[in-house]
Amino acid sequence: MRIALVVDIIRQEEKLIVKALNDHGIDYDVINVAQEPIPFNKALGRYDVGIIRAISMYRSLYSAAVLEGAGVHTINSSDVITVAGDKILTYSKLFRAGIPIPDSVIAMSPDSALKAYEQVGFPLIDKPPIGSWGRLVSLVRDIFEGKTITEHREMIGNSALKIHIIQEYIKEKNRDIRCIVLSKDELLGCYARNIPPNEWRANVALGGNPSSLQIDEKLKEIVLKASNVINGEFVSVDILEHPSKGYVINEFNDTPEFKGFMLATGINVPEKLISYIERGFS
Amino acid sequence: MRIALVVDIIRQEEKLIVKALNDHGIDYDVINVAQEPIPFNKALGRYDVGIIRAISMYRSLYSAAVLEGAGVHTINSSDVITVAGDKILTYSKLFRAGIPIPDSVIAMSPDSALKAYEQVGFPLIDKPPIGSWGRLVSLVRDIFEGKTITEHREMIGNSALKIHIIQEYIKEKNRDIRCIVLSKDELLGCYARNIPPNEWRANVALGGNPSSLQIDEKLKEIVLKASNVINGEFVSVDILEHPSKGYVINEFNDTPEFKGFMLATGINVPEKLISYIERGFS
Amino acid sequence: MRIALVVDIIRQEEKLIVKALNDHGIDYDVINVAQEPIPFNKALGRYDVGIIRAISMYRSLYSAAVLEGAGVHTINSSDVITVAGDKILTYSKLFRAGIPIPDSVIAMSPDSALKAYEQVGFPLIDKPPIGSWGRLVSLVRDIFEGKTITEHREMIGNSALKIHIIQEYIKEKNRDIRCIVLSKDELLGCYARNIPPNEWRANVALGGNPSSLQIDEKLKEIVLKASNVINGEFVSVDILEHPSKGYVINEFNDTPEFKGFMLATGINVPEKLISYIERGFS
Amino acid sequence: MRIALVVDIIRQEEKLIVKALNDHGIDYDVINVAQEPIPFNKALGRYDVGIIRAISMYRSLYSAAVLEGAGVHTINSSDVITVAGDKILTYSKLFRAGIPIPDSVIAMSPDSALKAYEQVGFPLIDKPPIGSWGRLVSLVRDIFEGKTITEHREMIGNSALKIHIIQEYIKEKNRDIRCIVLSKDELLGCYARNIPPNEWRANVALGGNPSSLQIDEKLKEIVLKASNVINGEFVSVDILEHPSKGYVINEFNDTPEFKGFMLATGINVPEKLISYIERGFS
Repeated sequence: MRIALVVDIIRQEEKLIVKALNDHGIDYDVINVAQEPIPFNKALGRYDVGIIRAISMYRSLYSAAVLEGAGVHTINSSDVITVAGDKILTYSKLFRAGIPIPDSVIAMSPDSALKAYEQVGFPLIDKPPIGSWGRLVSLVRDIFEGKTITEHREMIGNSALKIHIIQEYIKEKNRDIRCIVLSKDELLGCYARNIPPNEWRANVALGGNPSSLQIDEKLKEIVLKASNVINGEFVSVDILEHPSKGYVINEFNDTPEFKGFMLATGINVPEKLISYIERGFS
Repeated sequence: MRIALVVDIIRQEEKLIVKALNDHGIDYDVINVAQEPIPFNKALGRYDVGIIRAISMYRSLYSAAVLEGAGVHTINSSDVITVAGDKILTYSKLFRAGIPIPDSVIAMSPDSALKAYEQVGFPLIDKPPIGSWGRLVSLVRDIFEGKTITEHREMIGNSALKIHIIQEYIKEKNRDIRCIVLSKDELLGCYARNIPPNEWRANVALGGNPSSLQIDEKLKEIVLKASNVINGEFVSVDILEHPSKGYVINEFNDTPEFKGFMLATGINVPEKLISYIERGFS
Repeated sequence: MRIALVVDIIRQEEKLIVKALNDHGIDYDVINVAQEPIPFNKALGRYDVGIIRAISMYRSLYSAAVLEGAGVHTINSSDVITVAGDKILTYSKLFRAGIPIPDSVIAMSPDSALKAYEQVGFPLIDKPPIGSWGRLVSLVRDIFEGKTITEHREMIGNSALKIHIIQEYIKEKNRDIRCIVLSKDELLGCYARNIPPNEWRANVALGGNPSSLQIDEKLKEIVLKASNVINGEFVSVDILEHPSKGYVINEFNDTPEFKGFMLATGINVPEKLISYIERGFS
Repeated sequence: MRIALVVDIIRQEEKLIVKALNDHGIDYDVINVAQEPIPFNKALGRYDVGIIRAISMYRSLYSAAVLEGAGVHTINSSDVITVAGDKILTYSKLFRAGIPIPDSVIAMSPDSALKAYEQVGFPLIDKPPIGSWGRLVSLVRDIFEGKTITEHREMIGNSALKIHIIQEYIKEKNRDIRCIVLSKDELLGCYARNIPPNEWRANVALGGNPSSLQIDEKLKEIVLKASNVINGEFVSVDILEHPSKGYVINEFNDTPEFKGFMLATGINVPEKLISYIERGFS
């Protein structure tokens, strides 16, 4: 077996994957796509598996696509990255499958966003379909704040960031839940991310502090079901606790960070990932 | 039957679709997503079909996604728009299926692009994965031109536009071929777009002038095969004529313009589209 | 006398200037800098005066600069446009000269902005140094809103818009005052712009509705003094009424719009401007 | 005497300035404007001099402006930074004063740029008014290259970068000359920057390699004259050698880098700067 580990910046997470590969005595090449071009070429078929770990969403997406062109099994595949990396595409698949998501309205212009604010009612969340670490996920408490956000969004030179997901603000528990799923049926684990002071978001990058969490059957069921709907092979899932709907899926991450997860749960994620690959994806 | 016609700007093409809907006596609503927000709501299931015609790629993509959330059959679906709207994702699927594409290398940083230029050799084409009307599709004839392009791309505030598809320059015939496909097995027709003076691109928006074209079996075969690989239901295909490889697929368009096509071929595209829908997609 | 009227888009204001030029029988050329390049060339010295009316700040600035290169008297000059078009450069000159401005702190990074919010205290105004029509002028009422703004600003691909002017929120009167000054010593007039519902800004573009205003000596004095500090020849001035400081200068506009002003005051601005030029700037 | 040394990133150059300040036993504070907000406040008047060394042009400009508001003598002043930091404003002042510059045409839209290309004739240089290190300074050899550049420029989210300075390509000597001027009448020195292979620009950041240079009277005269026209107190000047016009001024830098200069000339720039300040600017 030969593995291509695709990276752009090598974080602790990628070092841990390298360590697991070494521990298992698996052949691998590290491909740094920030430095090396990759061709559409059947010779890439020398790799059995591509582990996709670029921090940039587009670099991950396109690296996976090029490897798949040569028949390589990618984790995750470009199809999964496309859907999991985009909150509207995610919601579409989940909503169709009957899996709870936050009540959401999509607005594709500033005027339309102002209308949607009225429909949804304040306070609400306005966020773009792409992006990580909670960036641009805005809490909007009145029309003043809404106008400020729509004006700023229009000045950003990326059309995707001018699209507004306007959704109910689910506050209840002052935390969110992050789980990691591996393969179709294994929920590796979950932990809670508690919202810090002066924040409305639980992202660790914004100061959210992790704590352990008891996984109940309902949580396990919805997480695996959601993950299967988007065909996730190795993804993290963010879940909110809704006062009436119970667990709702907020978003996926297709290149899951797992440093915080490992600290909170004690689960050795890269070891699990490499074992799964070694077993032939079962 | 009830149809949602999704638009942002109403061009002549959308007017012709409206006319065809009226001619067939089909119920429809025009949804202008530049003005109206659309919710994730099962009530959208009142529509049987969504015809997606927003000019903005993201507006088309997300409108389709929201309608699909309510179970609506969209033409095209968000999955098709995702792949057909992205040249790297398109190439991945085609290359895997053995369908000829231009020799292409993907570079995801300026340094990597400079390396890829050397690998591919000048002259070459450098283009980003997304975009329409030939925009940013650059002819690069030496390293000076290459440096100019990589520097400019880095200044654009959209990460996808910092990705380089670097590919062989296929000049031979001084034209490209555009075909429109409807459903799995109907090639509506094809015409040639001839490259005007002072251009290297055949796009009509850049002055490319259309002429009629005799469709041979090889062309028909590759176009239908390619269209099926990406599951296109109503797409246009751009084909280049390669001196040694014959026909190669250059790109798709998921919201095909057909004004020029109708002039060149005499085929009534909206009539065909609406009849196809009326027949129940067969 | 020969005049160059520099425009990009011709609004009603530019039509009125053309009418005044015709009424006075003055020779002029309309130079549309959105269509025609302009060279550094002494031949431009055939113009005695350049009236600079491009809507784009950069087009105005650079048109003035090119004409000045050939010795043309520009209204306004590139030096005036530079200072009046930039709120920090404006404040620098005014503050040095002892003319009241809103208490302001300049922050040049997101972290620095968060510190400045604490120093100034909520509610406050955060706005970038450049821009018109109140765009991106944000009311910030707590740290949540502040974080939303700093995050958004960082995503905008223009470094000047990542600079924060963080200043006291002067609400008192629910209006601002706009005056137009012509030459060193003529205050053409003033009117009030009343803040509409659901807004914190008085800009007419945002729905601010004009009303007439009695000009007192204090207002006249500060406006002329401020205008002289920045060498304004034909500028508008926005003034706020501060509960303790009295009149404070909020900003200038170097290409003043005067349609609303004419309605509110009955003063024929272009007639005044052309007469002033005809008299030889006196 | 008390000095404010304004920085954002501390390079070797700023360390050398700190060393010179220490050697002279001068009191100073380092103000990192990437971290600390600065207020419009007369208390800043505790500084006699502000040495402005932020790498970001806007940070330099606005730091100078805020200090000047409190009456501080800045090197350079915001007026100098405004003009020296902008190639069109620079050319305007120089051309008016009869100092040779490259023949230049200003175009403010893509269509206008295409017209200017024809007027100037290929090969030519197309560059935006702002920017450092040769970035976006493009060699344009035919209309294909010109179209590629105008298309890319339109996609950049900064209006100033959509402005084109289109000028004659001055190749002759395969080098440019960089001089540093201190005060009204002291030419500190000059050196040559030789254009490396695969480049059309001499910038050191792009591989241009420095060599020593004999300064003749003509060079000295034009450099001091140019520097005085823009009121430069501590600036670098880039000079081209034109086959018929002799020396022409290409651009200024208002926050001169001097590491390469010191290596090539052996002149201790920070020592000279601090001595000049200590002497009371004489």
